Amino acid sequence: MTRPRAVVVVTGSELVRGDRTDRNGPFLARELLRLGAEPARIAIVGDDPAELEAALGEGLEADLCVVSGGLGPTHDDRTVEMVARAAGLALVVDPALEAEIEAFSRGLAARLNRPYADFEAGVRKQATLPEGALVLGLAGTAPGLVVDAVRCAVVVLPGPPGELRRLWPRALEAEPVRRVFDAAVPPERRVLRFYGASESAVARALDESGGEGEGLAATVCAREFEIHVDLVADERGRARAGELAASLRERLGRWLFAEDERPVEELVLETCRARGLSLAAAESSTGGLVAARLTSVPGASDVFVGGVVTYSNELKRALLGVPAELLERHGAVSAESAAAMAAGARARLGADVSVAVTGIAGPGGGTREKPVGLVYLHAEGPDGSRGLELSLPGDRDAVRGRATVAALHLVRTLLAQNRDEHA
Amino acid sequence: MTRPRAVVVVTGSELVRGDRTDRNGPFLARELLRLGAEPARIAIVGDDPAELEAALGEGLEADLCVVSGGLGPTHDDRTVEMVARAAGLALVVDPALEAEIEAFSRGLAARLNRPYADFEAGVRKQATLPEGALVLGLAGTAPGLVVDAVRCAVVVLPGPPGELRRLWPRALEAEPVRRVFDAAVPPERRVLRFYGASESAVARALDESGGEGEGLAATVCAREFEIHVDLVADERGRARAGELAASLRERLGRWLFAEDERPVEELVLETCRARGLSLAAAESSTGGLVAARLTSVPGASDVFVGGVVTYSNELKRALLGVPAELLERHGAVSAESAAAMAAGARARLGADVSVAVTGIAGPGGGTREKPVGLVYLHAEGPDGSRGLELSLPGDRDAVRGRATVAALHLVRTLLAQNRDEHA
Repeated sequence: MTRPRAVVVVTGSELVRGDRTDRNGPFLARELLRLGAEPARIAIVGDDPAELEAALGEGLEADLCVVSGGLGPTHDDRTVEMVARAAGLALVVDPALEAEIEAFSRGLAARLNRPYADFEAGVRKQATLPEGALVLGLAGTAPGLVVDAVRCAVVVLPGPPGELRRLWPRALEAEPVRRVFDAAVPPERRVLRFYGASESAVARALDESGGEGEGLAATVCAREFEIHVDLVADERGRARAGELAASLRERLGRWLFAEDERPVEELVLETCRARGLSLAAAESSTGGLVAARLTSVPGASDVFVGGVVTYSNELKRALLGVPAELLERHGAVSAESAAAMAAGARARLGADVSVAVTGIAGPGGGTREKPVGLVYLHAEGPDGSRGLELSLPGDRDAVRGRATVAALHLVRTLLAQNRDEHA
Repeated sequence: MTRPRAVVVVTGSELVRGDRTDRNGPFLARELLRLGAEPARIAIVGDDPAELEAALGEGLEADLCVVSGGLGPTHDDRTVEMVARAAGLALVVDPALEAEIEAFSRGLAARLNRPYADFEAGVRKQATLPEGALVLGLAGTAPGLVVDAVRCAVVVLPGPPGELRRLWPRALEAEPVRRVFDAAVPPERRVLRFYGASESAVARALDESGGEGEGLAATVCAREFEIHVDLVADERGRARAGELAASLRERLGRWLFAEDERPVEELVLETCRARGLSLAAAESSTGGLVAARLTSVPGASDVFVGGVVTYSNELKRALLGVPAELLERHGAVSAESAAAMAAGARARLGADVSVAVTGIAGPGGGTREKPVGLVYLHAEGPDGSRGLELSLPGDRDAVRGRATVAALHLVRTLLAQNRDEHA
């Protein structure tokens, strides 16, 4: 059985000029895949009518075409007009919709202290739809739509990502869209996440395990300095996906740390919570990124008590009690300093577990002995500690980002090690 | 004079499935615009041969087509083969390139302890190019290329963003690409950045200032909770762009804070540096994001001494000296607490200027009196202080992100206010 072919058309001048990064295309693609369609293309175009018309023309050759943006009240918002043209449908005013947009716009006019007359043409324009279009609801004054273009179901959604995500579930309930997905079988997805193994080592293990097969697509990709293996299987590939996952577990078990999508900070917090341990961070070169990652998780506060960013040596002494002579002798970027920071964080912040980072993020500050990218990590818990020296490639952002992820994984492995020893 | 039309084709299964967000399209689009071309479309496709062929066929109708990804050694990396087909060119092995890739691959085989025979087919494949193609250099074993397809100059670059950016300047030196840009006049770009004015207020001011005109495109967009007005003008629109900018300065001067792209944390650090002031942060709900933003700027350490993330009340007392009775009486999320945190950070961290954040990021923790999104900020300097209460919409990430940006802008306005009073 072939999967329905889906195309996403994203409109927006600021997107096609690279001024902003599109978030709707990836969201819609993940949704389409999850529901059993094959996302074949994401096309990003601006408000040039010819470019938009061409992209929609190609989009309507798919079984399902999802369009985002270009629904505003002004003349350069041409999505609806162009969808009608591509589908060969007339444009007609929808009186009920017009009344609804008018009510909204009168309120807006009053709030902005402007005459309603300024809005009238825009209201009429936004209530003008391809004949037979289904209205999904309004985002501000812009209606989301489903158009049945015979061979293709067209979903038209507003550009702001929050509004698009709000109206998307309603589009899935519309008859022409349901027809597309009724015929589809959602694929089974698995993910295996490794940390510490190289991308090529994982790719090799995948090859040696037999690789892809009929009905099974396998992707290896580095994401956030972890290596993810994604397995997407239809009915024919399901058994094979299970075998492949088992083989990867056996070959790379040492580096396998998760088989779901939860970020490492969530896994760390969960392990601490399960063992009744509190957590603190002491950061220099990562400048707060470790704490920010941990506190990005809802409910972090029952585990994470807090952190310090000790950028200056004075603060390493004052807040963490790192001895001046240690800093003098080994330097702030040293294994000794990282260990002292971790010990100080446990004591001064009153936490059971701590993690410390000190390094040279660059671009300045490197020397021959201590080049940019040199990072020392240290994690300490009730049952022991672990230190790590890293030489990280890349620019300031990359060094800081990799050091942050490495620090979180160091805590994870420290806690896993303790657990194993206790078992 | 019309601008050369440019199309970007991005290949990658993980991109078209939404597993990863494409960074190459926006980078290339900004570059194309800067150099005077019109980025007409960014098409993202996977490794399906028919989809790739169709996207490249449309790409080659432009004056310039830049392709990223799909250059690896395996059979599903089909970009080069498909470019040759779309351009109507034969595929031939380039012996010099083959020798270069072979040398690299032999080194790789030795490091990985694998027989070179495993690499041989991949080497031959990667050294096979469209007839007449110019090699820009290698990214690992993958060559970047320029292909002269008569009506269209085709640039083929590797997918990893770092490698793509490294080879891109070499593509600009290739004769077929130079020919495209020789005919182009780079547009003049201006940006005006506002903070504190709504997007619709800025859009209205733009309208009332006369809006776009011949040869002038104006875009209003919210980015990182600031409102940016981008003006892109060709020769005909230049004078008009200057007038429009002047009118916006007059109408919205109170909220205008920059006419360049430097992030607000860089502006804050620069103002502190110019006045010889050191800076510290005390964070609760933002959990380290303010410190992380400030330390993302190279050289931040000569201004920013450090910060504390006091997630628990104990740490607010221990690290910042916030009185227990104040926390008891007003709660940790209160104007009083924010002021005490800021004062404590100045005193305990020994900084001239401090900024404090406390709030309820959600999804839990809200009450009727203190709902999710309630945030108190306080900034204190040698000449005074400023507090701010905010009710921020959105989820945990949005509340934390907006509060972080608001805290940085609060420091900026505190320092600007002091400067004005001193003048």
